Amino acid sequence: MGELRVRSVLVTGANRGIGLGLVQHLLGLPNPPEWVFAACRDPKGQRAQELQNLASKHPNLVIIPLEVTKPASIKAAAASVGERLKDSGLNLLINNAGMLVYKTLDTETQEDMAQVYATNTIGPLLLSQEFLPLLKKAAQGSPGSGLSCSKAAIINISSVGGSIKEVHMWKAAQCVSYRCSKAALNMLTKCQSLGYREHGILCAVFHPGWVQTDMGNTAGDKPPVTVDESVGGMLKVISSLSEKDTGTFLDWEGKVVPW
Amino acid sequence: MGELRVRSVLVTGANRGIGLGLVQHLLGLPNPPEWVFAACRDPKGQRAQELQNLASKHPNLVIIPLEVTKPASIKAAAASVGERLKDSGLNLLINNAGMLVYKTLDTETQEDMAQVYATNTIGPLLLSQEFLPLLKKAAQGSPGSGLSCSKAAIINISSVGGSIKEVHMWKAAQCVSYRCSKAALNMLTKCQSLGYREHGILCAVFHPGWVQTDMGNTAGDKPPVTVDESVGGMLKVISSLSEKDTGTFLDWEGKVVPW
Ligand SMILES: NC(=O)c1ccc[n+]([C@@H]2O[C@H](COP(=O)([O-])OP(=O)(O)OC[C@H]3O[C@@H](n4cnc5c(N)ncnc54)[C@H](OP(=O)(O)O)[C@@H]3O)[C@@H](O)[C@H]2O)c1
Ligand SMILES: NC(=O)c1ccc[n+]([C@@H]2O[C@H](COP(=O)([O-])OP(=O)(O)OC[C@H]3O[C@@H](n4cnc5c(N)ncnc54)[C@H](OP(=O)(O)O)[C@@H]3O)[C@@H](O)[C@H]2O)c1
Repeated sequence: MGELRVRSVLVTGANRGIGLGLVQHLLGLPNPPEWVFAACRDPKGQRAQELQNLASKHPNLVIIPLEVTKPASIKAAAASVGERLKDSGLNLLINNAGMLVYKTLDTETQEDMAQVYATNTIGPLLLSQEFLPLLKKAAQGSPGSGLSCSKAAIINISSVGGSIKEVHMWKAAQCVSYRCSKAALNMLTKCQSLGYREHGILCAVFHPGWVQTDMGNTAGDKPPVTVDESVGGMLKVISSLSEKDTGTFLDWEGKVVPW
Repeated sequence: MGELRVRSVLVTGANRGIGLGLVQHLLGLPNPPEWVFAACRDPKGQRAQELQNLASKHPNLVIIPLEVTKPASIKAAAASVGERLKDSGLNLLINNAGMLVYKTLDTETQEDMAQVYATNTIGPLLLSQEFLPLLKKAAQGSPGSGLSCSKAAIINISSVGGSIKEVHMWKAAQCVSYRCSKAALNMLTKCQSLGYREHGILCAVFHPGWVQTDMGNTAGDKPPVTVDESVGGMLKVISSLSEKDTGTFLDWEGKVVPW
């Protein structure tokens, strides 16, 4: 597994947790991307403080406003990224933004189900649709045949909680809205891999591990994986993906997760 | 596989297609249920003509108004079924109502995604929550140990189109909103099987085959399976389910479908 080399990458939910970790690792690569687009809901607010600090040190970091449940916001983000990239495309779209609601099978509501699905599943679909022209452009502009993440790729961050076979940690966290949304995101990724292969775009879905973030910490015990370990692992795996890996569900160590 | 024997069953989306076929077969059993609740959106309207004809011949058939995306409608349906059943519970809830939108990966919209999910996934969740007390009552009132559909069960009608491994018929029908909603319904069923086992309720999810109904006919070629074959097959399989089958995904012939 070589080191990841991409010209441009966009990460959603980049202001904290795994998203922020991805941005930090990308900026710290020996050959960092020319453009790291860090998308978050409130670029100027307190929640984006760490991103703002990073941006003051890294001219290749651009903070982009993005609310993934709002089509107009997604359109605006794609337009703004397109303007910066001028004639080149976007190599890598990482749909990382996500939410989890702590409910049980008995207490889950219609609103929770709809909101979590809008964020975790519909968001990644709409993002991919809007950034498709930029991803296609990157694929066309990259030399060589075969799929890879340095050419053009969509990486969706799912969870082993969305594995229907495993239903991981059911007793600790039923979270039916989350599990259903992530199973659906896995299906979306599989569909994207079938639909976008002809455009030269690799699509894969990841379980980042149970990670020490705001979301990971709510499950009770201390999560075993640090943000650094999760993100370092995922970027290593991402750099190694090829044609045969499109449409697969992998964890941060590169192991296949069952649907 | 013996013949299905249940005291009471409710079928959603019962006015046409597979739902209507289920009601007809249930009424035609040598030992028909005491109560067949046929739920549909507009019991008095033209769309429920066939159900009305059946009801005039079968006093054990009760038509219930139900819009599965409206929590108030679901609550009213559960109350009305509860009143009829008096001290006994509901043995079998069949979440059959569903919708399909013909869109592609590129044309799918936020509204389609949300509407299809509300109908195909959130509906079955809310139905199961509202009918849970009646299902529990049926389980408690049934003799013997172990799970079975004659005791208490939730059967969700999904599709092989929701199999992430297979992504069946991708070229003919991308229908991403439908596929995502059915993968999520499969996850929901798995969650229900884990959560409701302690209450004595069996939960399973079915692919009915590619069937000659309004929905099935829209996919281009003539579907290979008749409503009679699909429904006859499913009811046979349903009658044979036991403890070991809770949480499984089966087709109308009893074959396991991969997640
Ligand atoms: N941590 C784990 O153990 C774990 C395990 C499995 C999978 N995952 C997945 O990994 C991804 C990242 O999780 P995390 O642990 O880093 O979570 P986190 O600490 O809760 O951060 C979530 C991120 O998503 C953003 N976000 C949420 N809703 C959004 C919306 N509607 N529009 C734009 N941004 C939105 C948040 O922005 P705000 O700051 O504005 O809220 C935040 O940046 C998620 O998809 C999660 O499901 C995490
Ligand atoms: N046919 C196939 O080849 C096939 C294959 C795989 C899976 N399935 C699944 O099998 C089930 C039945 O399909 P079908 O072929 O019989 O479909 P269909 O002929 O289109 O009938 C759909 C039924 O669902 C009802 N319905 C839809 N939305 C509803 C809502 N919001 N509230 C209440 N009822 C609603 C419809 O009522 P109205 O008349 O009021 O619209 C109708 O009774 C579905 O879950 C479908 O996904 C079918």
